[in-house]
Parts: sequence; C-alpha cells; structure tokens
Amino acid sequence: MDKYEKFISRTAKEIRASEIREILAIIRARKDVISLAGGIPDPQTFPREELAEIAKHVIVDLGDTALQYSETKGILEVREMISHFLFEYRGISVDAENILVTTGSQQALDLISRTLIDPGDVVITENPSYLAAIGAFRVRGARLVGIKIDKHGMDTYQLEETVKKLVAEGERIKFIYTIPVGHNPAGTTMPTDRKKHLIEIANRYDLLVIEDDPYSYFVYDETADVSPLKAYDSEDRVLYLSTVSKILAPGLRIGWIASPRELTRRLELVKQYMDLHSPTLNQFIVAYAIRSGLVKEHAHKLAPFYRKKRDAMLKAIKEYFPDNVWYTEPIGGFFVFVYVLKEGFDTGKLLPTAINKYKVAYVPGQGFHTNGSGANSMRLSFSYPPPEIIEEGIRRIADMIRNEG
Amino acid sequence: MDKYEKFISRTAKEIRASEIREILAIIRARKDVISLAGGIPDPQTFPREELAEIAKHVIVDLGDTALQYSETKGILEVREMISHFLFEYRGISVDAENILVTTGSQQALDLISRTLIDPGDVVITENPSYLAAIGAFRVRGARLVGIKIDKHGMDTYQLEETVKKLVAEGERIKFIYTIPVGHNPAGTTMPTDRKKHLIEIANRYDLLVIEDDPYSYFVYDETADVSPLKAYDSEDRVLYLSTVSKILAPGLRIGWIASPRELTRRLELVKQYMDLHSPTLNQFIVAYAIRSGLVKEHAHKLAPFYRKKRDAMLKAIKEYFPDNVWYTEPIGGFFVFVYVLKEGFDTGKLLPTAINKYKVAYVPGQGFHTNGSGANSMRLSFSYPPPEIIEEGIRRIADMIRNEG
Repeated sequence: MDKYEKFISRTAKEIRASEIREILAIIRARKDVISLAGGIPDPQTFPREELAEIAKHVIVDLGDTALQYSETKGILEVREMISHFLFEYRGISVDAENILVTTGSQQALDLISRTLIDPGDVVITENPSYLAAIGAFRVRGARLVGIKIDKHGMDTYQLEETVKKLVAEGERIKFIYTIPVGHNPAGTTMPTDRKKHLIEIANRYDLLVIEDDPYSYFVYDETADVSPLKAYDSEDRVLYLSTVSKILAPGLRIGWIASPRELTRRLELVKQYMDLHSPTLNQFIVAYAIRSGLVKEHAHKLAPFYRKKRDAMLKAIKEYFPDNVWYTEPIGGFFVFVYVLKEGFDTGKLLPTAINKYKVAYVPGQGFHTNGSGANSMRLSFSYPPPEIIEEGIRRIADMIRNEG
Repeated sequence: MDKYEKFISRTAKEIRASEIREILAIIRARKDVISLAGGIPDPQTFPREELAEIAKHVIVDLGDTALQYSETKGILEVREMISHFLFEYRGISVDAENILVTTGSQQALDLISRTLIDPGDVVITENPSYLAAIGAFRVRGARLVGIKIDKHGMDTYQLEETVKKLVAEGERIKFIYTIPVGHNPAGTTMPTDRKKHLIEIANRYDLLVIEDDPYSYFVYDETADVSPLKAYDSEDRVLYLSTVSKILAPGLRIGWIASPRELTRRLELVKQYMDLHSPTLNQFIVAYAIRSGLVKEHAHKLAPFYRKKRDAMLKAIKEYFPDNVWYTEPIGGFFVFVYVLKEGFDTGKLLPTAINKYKVAYVPGQGFHTNGSGANSMRLSFSYPPPEIIEEGIRRIADMIRNEG
C-alpha cells in the first residue's frame, strides 16, 4: 500500500490488471513462443501507401478543419459517410443524426455504460463475452448475467428463460449485449432465426440491445446470413456499434454508435466530458477512405487473406486435436474458442507450462466468462501469424492437451 | 419524456447541454456577428505542410506499428519524447514511466476524475474555472469549492483558510485543480510566491494537486516567471497535464499526464476500459513533430502571433470600456475575463441582445463559477479573430455595457 492509496476512488480500486495484456507483454519478449493469444490484425494488410496519401491530402487541403476542434458527436460529413456505408454494407438505414463517432469501439462501450448503467443494473451477455466489454460494464457496477452459447452463438431459448426469471424477480435489466457475427472470443455467428428471436425477446420485455459488429464487413462463407440484428429492429431498440479497426487500421481509433436519436443526444452529452470529440484528422481520413472506395476494395482483399488463416487453424485442429475437445468453426472474425473436456483441465494454471514447455500461447478462457466458469476453455486467434505458424501452434497445443492436466 | 428515459443512468440524467456549445452553434450560422466566444486556435497557425509530410512518413515508414493497436499508457518512444520535451520546455524532470498519453487533455481530466473522485469528495478549483473540468468533476459527484481570484490568479491565502476549514469540518478533499499560466477563463498567471504557497498548503494538508498547463509553451511576456507548479513539487503531489492542442493542432487529440508512478499505473488500468489506448498514428505524429524541431520552431512563431491579438484586445478595452469594468491582463493563453460592476448586470440574460442588437458574442461567465456567482462576468477570447475584428468586437461590447443592464 503506497502513500497514494487513500486518494484512489472505489471504482479505480476495483480494477485489476487485464490477464491478456500481462500475457501479451510477456510473450512479446519471447521469440521462441508461437502466440495464438492476441487478436490483432495482421499489419501486412494495412493499406499504407493509400492511407499516407489520404492523410496528406486531408491535412493539406482540409487542414483548417481537419486539425481543429470539432463537434462532440462527430463531423457531419463523416457521419453522413458512415450512414451511406452502413446502408451499403449492412443494409442499415440510419440518418447522420443517429450516428455518433467514438474513439474506437471501446469508447462506445464505455460511453454506453456511463449513459445507461446504474450500479446494480443487470446486463446480459453471451457467456463467454468480450473481455473489455465485460470490464466496461463492471466498472459501472453492472451485474452480468451470461447466456450459454453453442456452435451458433447465444442460446436464445435460455435467454428468454433468463429474462423471464429476472423480470419476475424484479431485477432491472438495462440491455442485452451481443456480438452476432464472428464473436470475440467465441468465434460463433448467430443464424437468422436466433437474431429474430432475440429481437422478439427485447420487444416483449422492453429491453435495449447493444449489437457489437466489428467483424462482419468481411466473412469467410458468402452463403451465410450475416445480416445485423439492427435489420430486424422493429421497435428501435438496438444500439449498433462498429469500427474501422478490423477493415482499415486499429491505430486510427475510429468507431461509431448508430442509435435512436434520443439516445444519440444523451450519448453526446456524456461524451463531451470524456474527450470533447474524437480526433478530427482521423475522422476525415476514415470518411475519405470510405468515399474513395479504399475500404470497399480493401475489405474484399481481407476475406480471402484471413480465410486462409482460418482454414489453416481449423484443418490443424481437425488433424491434431484429440476427441475430447469442443471448438467453434468461425465464418467471420479472428477467433476459435475451445473447451477441453477433461476433468480438472485448467488453461489458466497451464499457461506457464504452455509457454515454457510447449512454446505456445493462448488466452485462458475463464476471464471471458461472466460466472467464473470456463477454466477449461481458451481463445485461439488466427489473425496475426502466417498459416504455417498457425499449424505448428495448434500442433503444440494439441500436445499440451494430450499430455497435461 | 421519451420512451428511452427509463434506460438512462442517474449520471447521464444530471448532464445538461453546455451553454458555450449551444451558443457557438448559433453564432456559426450568423456571419454578421463578431464572436469573442470560442477559445479555439487560429487555423492559419496550423503547420499543415509540415504535418502532412510527417503523417505521410509515419504511415509509410512506421505503418506496421503506427496503424496498429498499441499500449494503453502510450507508446514508449512517444512517452520518452514527451519526457525530453517537458524537461526542455518546462524544466520538469520525469521519466517516460511517469507519463501516460491521453486522448486530449479532456480525457486526462475525465481519467483523473474516475481514478480519484468518489461521490461527495471535495475538489478545490479557482472560481471561475475551466468549464469542461468542472463538468468532468461534477459527473463523478464531486463537491466543488471555488477559491476567489484576483489579477494574479488564485488567492492562496483564501485557499489556505478554506482548506483549514474543510479539514476541520471532516470533509475529504481529493485535490486542488489549477491552471497556473494563462488561465481559462480567467486569463491570469500565478506569480512564484503563490505557486510556492500552493505547494506548501498541499504538503501541509496532504493533498494532491492537478496542474493543467496547456498554454504556457508560449507566453507574451518573456520576463514573467511561468515555471510550473511541478517544479516546486517537493513531495511528488502534482499531476501535471498538458496537450499539443495549442502548440500544434487540437484535431490530433493528444495530451498527457505526468504523475507519480503509482498513480500512472492506476490511471493506466482505468484508461484501458475507456478507449484501449489513444490513437497510435497521432502519437507518432506528435513524437515526430517534437523530435524534428517543428514544435519548437512553431511555438516561437505563436508567441508574437497571438501577442498581437492580445494587444489589440487590451488596447481596445482600455480605449472603449467604461470605468465600471474589472478585467484581467493575460500574459499567456487566449482569454480576458471581465466583471461588469453594475448592479443587476447579467451577461447570460443579455447574450441574445448582444448577438441580435450589438452583433457580438462572448461566453457568459456564470457557468465557470462553482457557486452560482459571476452573473455579471464574461469570457472574451482573442485567439481566433484578426486584430481589427477584435477591436471592433470590443467596441460593440463596450456599447452594450454602457447601454444595457
């Protein structure tokens, strides 16, 4: 306990260091270890020459505006461009006035948490769910209730039972948070009937829905229905989040929320004290990258590029993993989620062994779970390493699963 | 009351639209009105060609890193560059490990509020103080206590009396928030003895100090002592905030906090759920702009540029304002603060008259005050308009002061 401890808020005291981040920091220093841990884009996909030209153009020709302070909700032209983009890519019909630009999707999660959650409110998520969303909701004092997944994502029958029970108990449910396509960490995609069912439940029980959609702009199976929940949103209950982090570059930190106008206005008021506005320059770069066709062209290239990596991971899993492993088969996103069906198998406890003995790293799955379960699970990412390294990584994990625990 | 009202958190419900922002929105559409309201940099100062070259270089040559996710506390090379910069420009000796990069200074204020303030804690500020800081502290439930200013900033004798009284009453004071140089909105700069006195008080009563320092990198009077409070910080109690918004470009949204290592670590944990990290690209642009000497060169040009505007405002005030006006004479920053010593004079109520009849705009001062006082005050900014427009604006305000109220 240091001399500053007494100045720290209760909120800050509750935040612990993130497991993933600590692991990633360790692994970065170990060149002999294959990491299937971090879910970051492969930097060779970044359209550097094109972005450099765009940045130069934006600064020279629009500098008076692009380097200046700007509106909290985002620059009008940028929101208009995102509105066109959402219609073209996701069939989402929203006006620029429904869009609020955020400093990456993470700010959208934090902003929504501050705008909607009071301490003690219930938030429903998939179990497992995205770690930094869980974190943002918990920081606001939310009580998380996780709904089990199968290979097609959230089990909406369990969702309905759970909502009914919570409502009967007088709990205040603020929203359902879901990642319908290419789930992080689960690697699942919800089929049409489940999407419709989820919206029905939200309508019946008067709930909001947060749809987090960073991965759907390119998928690995063109026959799959990857339409957004927002497309079925008959009562305007869905707040739709996305970002250019996966289709352009995460270092730009530009995301957005499309929501009912009354909520956009509320979100704007809360955001003004968070960072005044998201970086003006980056907003213009993104708008220009959309308008010039760069994003479209680029997304087309990303699908086959990451499909190869996904194929390499699934092929290796089928070849090397023993039978007592349950895993998901992603048609989008960067992740395969794995449960090892072996009594007492603990991926968290085994991580040092994985790194030191098997020279491979993953993210232990327990932290993604809302209820302390999932000690036997792990998240494997295929986004960063090349296919042959992915195969070797999976071989090493297979060895570990066979020999340990 | 709309159908979404019941989903809104208590925190969000307490936030009202900012007066300044609404006024600025109105004025933007009125070309016949001279605005001395917004405190934004003059865009003709933006070094566009240089920044365009830097951005292009950073994206092409460092794109693998500059477009990627990065560390929550900021990129090491960038923090190192800021550390050199602080030493050279402000005589502040801190290690890169003491620095956390933020998405503009506003995020620093929000981040500090979340990390330090529990509802009911007392925060001490100047009265008046920076509007968006007051907002960020209030959102966290702080009780604000304002200390009166004179032409040399915060009256530290009143500060000492107030702290003594609050401590005796058992109040928990979390920190003193101050803008020692070129205060927004007050336009004041604290002399050396007051800075030392403030630090003495913090040491004696075991308080933290938040020093907000966006304006000191160029000043209009080279003989003035503009050393930072941090330079007198014998017990490591000062969290020092700054930004490149005034010396390079606000649209980049890059600021930082220099603080004791134990606090930097806490701030980092809270920030991870706020936006994962500040834009990687913008961090590299800023680091390169510092390293290449652009910031240094640029700051030298800004001093004479803005000095001319300040001189124009003060000269016009001396010429046109009646005797019953108290005003500050800034040696740094963008603002002159004015109290009209006329019974019942209300700058808030008069604003529509100012805009419609006198064709001039200012920011009414009451919102800057912590205790509802200041109805007779206004903030005048000289940063944006050219000198001759400033002069005409002041003439119009003088007419209004003479004729109205």
